[in-house]
Amino acid sequence: MSGVDTVGGVPGVRAGDHHDSWRVQALKQVSYEVRLRDDVFGLDRTDLLEAGESGFGSRRRFVVVDSAVNALYGARIREYFTHHGIDHAMLVMQVAETVKDFDSVARIVAEMDAFGLARRREPMIVIGGGVLMDVAGLVASLYRRGTPFLRVPTTLVGLIDAGVGAKTGVNFNGHKNRLGTYAPADLTLLDRRFLATLDRRHVSNGMAEMLKIALIKDAALFDLLERSGRLLLDERFQGHTPAGDQAATLALRAATQGMLEELGPNLWEGRLERCVDYGHTFSPTVEMRALPSLLHGEAVCVDMALTTVMAYRRGLLDETQRDRILRLMAELELPTWHPLLNPAVLECALRDTVRHRDDQQRLPLPVGIGGVTFVNDVTVDELAAAAAMQRRLCEDLAYAQPLRA
Amino acid sequence: MSGVDTVGGVPGVRAGDHHDSWRVQALKQVSYEVRLRDDVFGLDRTDLLEAGESGFGSRRRFVVVDSAVNALYGARIREYFTHHGIDHAMLVMQVAETVKDFDSVARIVAEMDAFGLARRREPMIVIGGGVLMDVAGLVASLYRRGTPFLRVPTTLVGLIDAGVGAKTGVNFNGHKNRLGTYAPADLTLLDRRFLATLDRRHVSNGMAEMLKIALIKDAALFDLLERSGRLLLDERFQGHTPAGDQAATLALRAATQGMLEELGPNLWEGRLERCVDYGHTFSPTVEMRALPSLLHGEAVCVDMALTTVMAYRRGLLDETQRDRILRLMAELELPTWHPLLNPAVLECALRDTVRHRDDQQRLPLPVGIGGVTFVNDVTVDELAAAAAMQRRLCEDLAYAQPLRA
Repeated sequence: MSGVDTVGGVPGVRAGDHHDSWRVQALKQVSYEVRLRDDVFGLDRTDLLEAGESGFGSRRRFVVVDSAVNALYGARIREYFTHHGIDHAMLVMQVAETVKDFDSVARIVAEMDAFGLARRREPMIVIGGGVLMDVAGLVASLYRRGTPFLRVPTTLVGLIDAGVGAKTGVNFNGHKNRLGTYAPADLTLLDRRFLATLDRRHVSNGMAEMLKIALIKDAALFDLLERSGRLLLDERFQGHTPAGDQAATLALRAATQGMLEELGPNLWEGRLERCVDYGHTFSPTVEMRALPSLLHGEAVCVDMALTTVMAYRRGLLDETQRDRILRLMAELELPTWHPLLNPAVLECALRDTVRHRDDQQRLPLPVGIGGVTFVNDVTVDELAAAAAMQRRLCEDLAYAQPLRA
Repeated sequence: MSGVDTVGGVPGVRAGDHHDSWRVQALKQVSYEVRLRDDVFGLDRTDLLEAGESGFGSRRRFVVVDSAVNALYGARIREYFTHHGIDHAMLVMQVAETVKDFDSVARIVAEMDAFGLARRREPMIVIGGGVLMDVAGLVASLYRRGTPFLRVPTTLVGLIDAGVGAKTGVNFNGHKNRLGTYAPADLTLLDRRFLATLDRRHVSNGMAEMLKIALIKDAALFDLLERSGRLLLDERFQGHTPAGDQAATLALRAATQGMLEELGPNLWEGRLERCVDYGHTFSPTVEMRALPSLLHGEAVCVDMALTTVMAYRRGLLDETQRDRILRLMAELELPTWHPLLNPAVLECALRDTVRHRDDQQRLPLPVGIGGVTFVNDVTVDELAAAAAMQRRLCEDLAYAQPLRA
């Protein structure tokens, strides 16, 4: 952090000519790390304990863990902290999109108060899926106006999406992530081993965000997913075969790097034309209205299927590319259609997204496979026509997946 | 915002040697303005409409106004926006320290959703006292992860303290400002005219924060308050006499500049030794436990009286200085003692503040008048002895003010 300009020798504050106004200018430096690491709770691993530029000077940790993760890995996690002599409290939380709200924030804060965290030396450690990453990240950014935290995502959405960026948030008033902050964890450890016990639908769910990166910026990743996506799903990224192991390493690395390349230079979204918003124009509204039937990645995929058809209708994709995309979605066991894609809901979704993008549509559409453009002239008629074509394609070509409850 | 380092030509992201880690580095530039302006809702005034580096490109505004301010100035404020053709919604809020909570946040957010704000072009305007500044500031920083806002503080605490810094917050779990952010308003307009209708106790309350600045960094302001503090209180900073007018101008300018000099170079509290924390070591706990009997500035003054005595006992102040300080507090009609200053409460307050200051006391104490030092060796015995002396002094020297309900 450093100042700009001075008043009376004080950097960062400039007084006006008539001593009746002041301008404060300051720079905040943010730095965070993301590491691919297998077996982070192996007793010989120290990533979690040495975190921070020069380590956090305390051996106390407040740990928040997802209840499903706790059932599978809780004993191992406790053993890890005990083995290393870490004084810790562990809060087990049941989380889901439906309880991604301020009450969950309040519950974590109350436990932090009870444990009594020193503000900067005793980071919170969060272990779980994307929803828990978002909620606990919001807590960390609000608690005493900011306390450090470390993330260990345990789902595929967590590993390649929620766990690597700076966004935190909770739903409010029926709107997805209506309240939140930009506050990245000091360190995130991406451990694919956790995916071994993730149910197949949640692996598929995470692959939607991987597909998003492929579609708007990484044709090679798209090819990899076409070639090996099904294998990755079958093997849950565990590398049971040499081909599967190589594909898992490449796919996780490419998806993470792709996300970070887009987020890093635009961490606070000064630029609202974001290609990583692809699939996130209509899906926030669809996901919230469909709760709890669509997972996040599934809602994103339904949005991407719609916008793929829009891109085709505008001549940005040819028919072969369009069908490769829809076919890959189906192969990854992702839905490509949802009954909520009707003109009324789409219009309402677009209106809220336009507000979110500061009064413009800034709608990302794929250009071929691996390219992107932003458009601002989408009409409700176009949406209705595209959705009708999407529905026909999904039915006719048997792309449609059974809707899962 | 600009990046540091690169990966594959992308600024701000650096990949590790083995392609298994990444570091993201980014700089956020924050810039905000504070203006002294009389009569901001005069029909010829345009500060509120032209705000922002190049103006916000929309003529819609969401306005939050304190209910007491609305009763006195609501018609004038509405006329102002109507006169200038601004499409606006106005939410009238009854606020107090006792309802400085997430429910108040939620109420504002629901109204913002109903009005439908474009994310960056349509700032919220907040008109009211320090509590409303803090709550609405938190809303602005959380709503869609940040929306611009403008502040018009209407109390003296608002003008010289809550309205000029970057802190936002709500109370939680019995702790003052336990949840919050650093998010300054784009523009704050300090209009002393609002103080004309502020009740005397709230003027006095604000003078405690002014006295704080005087004590730890501005001996000239202390002299001014000794000379003219009572006149300022009597005239409510309205300048009914030439002497009162000059004193009001000087005092408001000095207090604001003093705060900004301390906040500007340390906007995110990277440094936890903050002289503006003077009076804020024990007062957060005392204020919350005394709710609603002590106003914020009153609790701060009780804390400053205690720490003045501590400084005297350590030889940092002489007896004359000590008594000048206590006498000035009394003259400004501020309390210098409170029954909650007992060893059990003081110990508990110190413990929470130590956590807040990252495991150290970092307790600011005055050195003479206008100087400051930080100590880390305070014991409960010292606190008990100082509080006992404080109580005697306040009784013996008739400094004690009646406790107000």
